[in-house]
Amino acid sequence: MPASATPAPTKIGVILFPGFQLLDICGPLDVLNILSSTKILHLSILASTLNPVSTKHGLSGNAGSNFGESIVPTHTFANAPDDLEVLILPGGFGARKEENIEGVVEFVEAYYPKLRWCLTVCTGSAILAKTGVLDGRRATSNKRAFAWVREQNPAVQWVPKARWVVDGNIWTSSGISAGIDLIYAWIAEVWGEETASFVADCSEYERNTDPGNDRFAERWGVL
Amino acid sequence: MPASATPAPTKIGVILFPGFQLLDICGPLDVLNILSSTKILHLSILASTLNPVSTKHGLSGNAGSNFGESIVPTHTFANAPDDLEVLILPGGFGARKEENIEGVVEFVEAYYPKLRWCLTVCTGSAILAKTGVLDGRRATSNKRAFAWVREQNPAVQWVPKARWVVDGNIWTSSGISAGIDLIYAWIAEVWGEETASFVADCSEYERNTDPGNDRFAERWGVL
Repeated sequence: MPASATPAPTKIGVILFPGFQLLDICGPLDVLNILSSTKILHLSILASTLNPVSTKHGLSGNAGSNFGESIVPTHTFANAPDDLEVLILPGGFGARKEENIEGVVEFVEAYYPKLRWCLTVCTGSAILAKTGVLDGRRATSNKRAFAWVREQNPAVQWVPKARWVVDGNIWTSSGISAGIDLIYAWIAEVWGEETASFVADCSEYERNTDPGNDRFAERWGVL
Repeated sequence: MPASATPAPTKIGVILFPGFQLLDICGPLDVLNILSSTKILHLSILASTLNPVSTKHGLSGNAGSNFGESIVPTHTFANAPDDLEVLILPGGFGARKEENIEGVVEFVEAYYPKLRWCLTVCTGSAILAKTGVLDGRRATSNKRAFAWVREQNPAVQWVPKARWVVDGNIWTSSGISAGIDLIYAWIAEVWGEETASFVADCSEYERNTDPGNDRFAERWGVL
């Protein structure tokens, strides 16, 4: 365990906004669900209100489907615990509507200096980039949405080919499913490789443990 | 597309019960979320009441953690749509408490004859086995929990080494993360391999496309 990970964190927060991508959050959280049976962990789920937050984004391109899921927050941004150590920020198509993420950007910008780690999944890094804390730092994001991501803040050193990128205490992953590899890599950093492997075996998950192993950069033409 | 998949299904239901495993449901559902942007799909989320359903199982072994997530149902078992074509049944530690799944077993037993497909993830197959519809059929389940699963109904032909198993219209997957490979395989069967590959590329997911590729059987000693 690196010195920066001592003592091990226990207070984790995740952020929801309308139109978040379900797996961006539930991939990492279910890994932490399993970890929480052997390590003390507490979860706060933050959103602008306490109303359930839906994955439905209300933007174009749903083919006429009525398909989505809603997760229940535990805290609003206004009454968030002030001692969160880790914050996980998802992406999702909903982030393209400024009104959906307005409170998110303000909250993360104000809260970031208190955090020990900030983890983003998918276009969550584009939201984080809007706060300015990624300026001059290396980060990655969803490969299919990479052109849009770059436009959100060109001052970030966007890394096209990476399953995930670590820069200081900010860990950013590539699109959707990559968040699962990110959280296992982060657990390996904090609690050790043996713990990460054990949890992955419990979840019957085949990890990608190489952050440079990313065929989706080429697949989506962002090299 | 096989004849049995014509016309393509549009009405999908999933079941929640207290202590369900988050990724068992959210893995497959997020794949379907992406698919629903190009194919018409409607989702019903069923539970015993309309109250949010938590992953917390209230059983021993949580290390003192306060960690879990709640998803909001859209229907109760009593007022479920009567035209669902596909039902997805998760597993989870909560299934070990009989009271958590009592309404589930009754609902699935009564509804199964109307379904075109029934998909289970993880120990969801153990719940399905309690209905009797798996008697004499081949099925798989969570490998770490396999001994407990077998005890739930020895009349099932439990397959120890399999990422997933198809028997008739029942598709059962191995533990937790295996549900993601299951849903991609099912999408490939129904809408074709090209569609399944495209959705996986959008989600930046590396599929296991071989149902016999399962190192977790050996890992958890169930061979």
